[in-house]
Amino acid sequence: MLLEQIKQVNDIKNINPKDYPALAQEIRDFLIQKISETGGHLGSNLGTVELTMALHLALNLPEDKIIWDVGHQSYTHKLLTGRREGFDNLRKFEGMSGFPKRGESDCDAFETGHSSTSISAGLGLVKARDIKGENHTVVSVIGDGALTGGMAYEALNNASRLETNFIIILNDNDMSISENVGGMSKYLNNIRTSNAYLDIKDGIYDTLRGTKYGDPVVAGIRKAKNSFKQLVVPGMFFEDMGITYLGPVDGHDIQGLIKVIKEAKRRKNAVLIHVSTKKGKGYGPAEKHPARFHGAEPFDVATGVPKKKKTKANWTDVFSTVMIKLGQRNKDVVAITAAMPDGTGLKRFRSLYPERFFDVGIAEEHAVTFAAGLAVGGMKPIVAIYSTFLQRAYDQILHDVCIQNLPVVFAIDRAGLVGSDGETHQGAFDLSYLSSIPNMHIMAPKNKWELSDMLKFSVKFDGPMAIRYPRGAAYDGLEEFRAPIVFGKGEVIYREEETALLAVGSMVETGEKVRDILKEAGMKVTLVNARFVKPVDEELLRNLAKDHSLLVTMEENVESGGFGEKVRAFIDEERLKTEVLTIAIPDKFIAHGNVDILKKKIGLDAESIAERIIAWKKGMTER
Amino acid sequence: MLLEQIKQVNDIKNINPKDYPALAQEIRDFLIQKISETGGHLGSNLGTVELTMALHLALNLPEDKIIWDVGHQSYTHKLLTGRREGFDNLRKFEGMSGFPKRGESDCDAFETGHSSTSISAGLGLVKARDIKGENHTVVSVIGDGALTGGMAYEALNNASRLETNFIIILNDNDMSISENVGGMSKYLNNIRTSNAYLDIKDGIYDTLRGTKYGDPVVAGIRKAKNSFKQLVVPGMFFEDMGITYLGPVDGHDIQGLIKVIKEAKRRKNAVLIHVSTKKGKGYGPAEKHPARFHGAEPFDVATGVPKKKKTKANWTDVFSTVMIKLGQRNKDVVAITAAMPDGTGLKRFRSLYPERFFDVGIAEEHAVTFAAGLAVGGMKPIVAIYSTFLQRAYDQILHDVCIQNLPVVFAIDRAGLVGSDGETHQGAFDLSYLSSIPNMHIMAPKNKWELSDMLKFSVKFDGPMAIRYPRGAAYDGLEEFRAPIVFGKGEVIYREEETALLAVGSMVETGEKVRDILKEAGMKVTLVNARFVKPVDEELLRNLAKDHSLLVTMEENVESGGFGEKVRAFIDEERLKTEVLTIAIPDKFIAHGNVDILKKKIGLDAESIAERIIAWKKGMTER
Repeated sequence: MLLEQIKQVNDIKNINPKDYPALAQEIRDFLIQKISETGGHLGSNLGTVELTMALHLALNLPEDKIIWDVGHQSYTHKLLTGRREGFDNLRKFEGMSGFPKRGESDCDAFETGHSSTSISAGLGLVKARDIKGENHTVVSVIGDGALTGGMAYEALNNASRLETNFIIILNDNDMSISENVGGMSKYLNNIRTSNAYLDIKDGIYDTLRGTKYGDPVVAGIRKAKNSFKQLVVPGMFFEDMGITYLGPVDGHDIQGLIKVIKEAKRRKNAVLIHVSTKKGKGYGPAEKHPARFHGAEPFDVATGVPKKKKTKANWTDVFSTVMIKLGQRNKDVVAITAAMPDGTGLKRFRSLYPERFFDVGIAEEHAVTFAAGLAVGGMKPIVAIYSTFLQRAYDQILHDVCIQNLPVVFAIDRAGLVGSDGETHQGAFDLSYLSSIPNMHIMAPKNKWELSDMLKFSVKFDGPMAIRYPRGAAYDGLEEFRAPIVFGKGEVIYREEETALLAVGSMVETGEKVRDILKEAGMKVTLVNARFVKPVDEELLRNLAKDHSLLVTMEENVESGGFGEKVRAFIDEERLKTEVLTIAIPDKFIAHGNVDILKKKIGLDAESIAERIIAWKKGMTER
Repeated sequence: MLLEQIKQVNDIKNINPKDYPALAQEIRDFLIQKISETGGHLGSNLGTVELTMALHLALNLPEDKIIWDVGHQSYTHKLLTGRREGFDNLRKFEGMSGFPKRGESDCDAFETGHSSTSISAGLGLVKARDIKGENHTVVSVIGDGALTGGMAYEALNNASRLETNFIIILNDNDMSISENVGGMSKYLNNIRTSNAYLDIKDGIYDTLRGTKYGDPVVAGIRKAKNSFKQLVVPGMFFEDMGITYLGPVDGHDIQGLIKVIKEAKRRKNAVLIHVSTKKGKGYGPAEKHPARFHGAEPFDVATGVPKKKKTKANWTDVFSTVMIKLGQRNKDVVAITAAMPDGTGLKRFRSLYPERFFDVGIAEEHAVTFAAGLAVGGMKPIVAIYSTFLQRAYDQILHDVCIQNLPVVFAIDRAGLVGSDGETHQGAFDLSYLSSIPNMHIMAPKNKWELSDMLKFSVKFDGPMAIRYPRGAAYDGLEEFRAPIVFGKGEVIYREEETALLAVGSMVETGEKVRDILKEAGMKVTLVNARFVKPVDEELLRNLAKDHSLLVTMEENVESGGFGEKVRAFIDEERLKTEVLTIAIPDKFIAHGNVDILKKKIGLDAESIAERIIAWKKGMTER
């Protein structure tokens, strides 16, 4: 086993070059085996085995810095830096992260998770290096999907001014998570599929030189501001910005990659190396179904079929089904995704209503302002973006949607804890960042039927409306509670007295369990499904305050700016005679791990919440 | 007077074409005269007089839609749509806005303020038009500065796929507010300055055709994937993305502009018209000092000199001076601005430490992640961005700076109400969006000396730190209170009992006045300068709760997620026996107007606050 010889960074340099392909194969086998057990990002990692090996061979880590855009393709890098053991607990609680983490290795130069950050971060490292008079190489590895994100372009625009070395590797597999979109993608694809370009360049010169007036013409063209060479070689787009373009290079040819990286290191400016890779390379099922193997659950290696059969519909599935109905009933309904037609559940809507479906690429900012434009034009846009990625569009929500009070619906999937992706992906902030915005309204459904009802309600609502729901199986309990959605009104599930639980969305299911525990302890407990986070149901709060000494708010969101603080503010301002206890995600970043474990850890599980309430009640009587 | 004949939209079409230059001159004279009295955006408006006239002549408003990126260049548009009277109260409270407002005119198709949104919004209007089977023209007018913003590129990437008409006008004056930066700017400048391009195209064909083998070569090149024409004409960058490029066109030639707009309307795809304009055109002082006349205070027309002499240093001036000292003392200090070296006060730092100064263009997302990279590389980055524009980088602050807990300092100017720019520019949200982020820390200075002390403290602090300060003259009172900054600790200015005012930053000055009023009413009043919004000073709160029945928090920020809610949460959680009254910006967008008037309107002035406190106290005793 070659892989066993690699115990720490740079051990790969002791491998005989003729064994590189064998090592690549061992890495692939290892990754397929391990990820089939733990789950994780497979396709992107199989696509970058040779590229990572070439980088480790051509660079000198940890002095040289590699920044992995989005970061989930860094598994081979983890392997080559002595973290083989870590794969046994990949993305598990207190196990190895699925993303680069500076705490794990000094070879992880910068932490990533969201898309399109690597060139900006790399530029920062380059400038710091130069100011300090250091001499190492900085490499940002970015996918073609990430290149649809605006901040990558902002960074390229700045990189173009560099008079010092900076290497950008464009890992082009012609797709991000799903198929890639837009002019840039088309352009890159043109380059990839036409090696003709280089031939044309040589051919033209030869032809011209062969003619009577050829030489002066060539000389004349050379004198023009942009040389003829630049005009005809691929990568003009980047050259136009002032960035040297090298490529396209076969991303599975280790020696070729090493050669071009070494060439790039010699330049005294920003260099873009265009590398063609294949997502899922070397594993049939992943090559065939790249979206399915983007972030995979544990699967059977022989067939590629997930080990666990899904028994219940996900929240995403419910959204998907309702969207089809909405699209059918209302011709003004349009749907927008930022490169996530699968993840958000809009794939079926796309196939039925292609002219009303828009995948804008990894471009959340554009997605939201585009939706604002659609709304002004009389459409009813539903923007489906994960909670964590919608953070990218905070200003657009505020500035383009809410100031104009436009009827845009935000379908916010993965709100709350998401589990194995960790800090960078937890949906812990949407209630806060959305609540602070005037004209914004926010709902959260308790179960799958309510998600359906809320979507239908939202489509008729004339103003900005957000609906947030978590990752995973949709709750299918409490079916009997299905009072119509009324603007700004909560739903009382069980009405008693003394203690009232006011739960937001996913916490209603938890709230039932909390109530059971408290009831067993002899308490009287009201359970309210808040439904609306903004506005809060003031009438209901006044009513509850009459015969409850304690209101307990429960939300899967940080406390600051969340639901609990709104309830507390109202109770205080009205001087109502009841105490408020807020249960929320604490003010720290929550790492990866199983959601149930994480919830226990931060006190968001039913037992912890019940304990806190009992302790609080004890404090009340003791005073 | 030609201008008097224009009473409503399309009246310009009755003007004799030979009188267009005279009308343009009248518009210029009108704008210079009016803005010299009211203040406002001058340079950008003088640059777009002919372009706006041409648009109104070539289009059919209000059916056709014009979206003005950033919106402050829409004055001629306002004039041509019957809003001449409005200029008497331009940007005044309840007067005409300095930006497009749908409520003002049905010719204002989409509201703007922040940069780089127009192509996204335009695309939305285009798609809505097509779905509804309508037939009007949509035009987005975007400056070259706004083109450094990533979301403009995201939108271009999507526009490239259009198979229907959409006109993008690139208003290229080779600067945004200050000089423009980056590869795109260099590229556009190359096109502007080399009409040679078109000559080369024709010349090459002619030369080749003149040679023996010329014709087959031309034919061969034509067959290549990208035609030779495309390779040599300007605008290749846009053509590469799939967008038809027309230009460059003289932006002060009305007939030429009309011709090219009509030509663009015929295309069945996205068309970019590259228009060369001169900022400040026709007014000497504005042509000479474009930054000064970007957003101008009232000035003397003959000399261009501001009418009001500045008597006190602005907060920005104080920041500017301290930055020079910090740059000198600490070689790791680097400064970053997003196209605002003047506005943020970093111009002097730039001239002294050019190698440690970075203007990244209108690219707040990149600015923050770039700073994160610099911090990982060992630098001490200070990112100076206005409160309202930093909204653009919410995710980058959270994801790239705070998850890694990096020592980046955010110098947040224009925090609180900014006045005449209105809704789109009020700095009313930063305490909320920053507070929700773990690892973030927030300070606000009471006076100019404290801003200096806080900056010095921040540079030594090992973690993310934000300092927010308002627009306008720096408060120079309370000089005698200058206790050293201690992490997380507030400053007690006057210690009495019963009622405590806890004021954030700018509200300390107001707090003094409130206290004076309350004292006159016979109350005992403590005044605390909070200094830290996050973390709140828990020890101080415990101490105050002992002998105060009421804590009044005061902040120039919305209530949701702000300082008051943090204080309230702590008091409640600790079950301290004191009431909390929160004074903050209400949950609505605040329009333009004089800041003092706005504050009175929303109850943030000393008198209103004192009244509220007295009423609250009355309620306390009555219970």
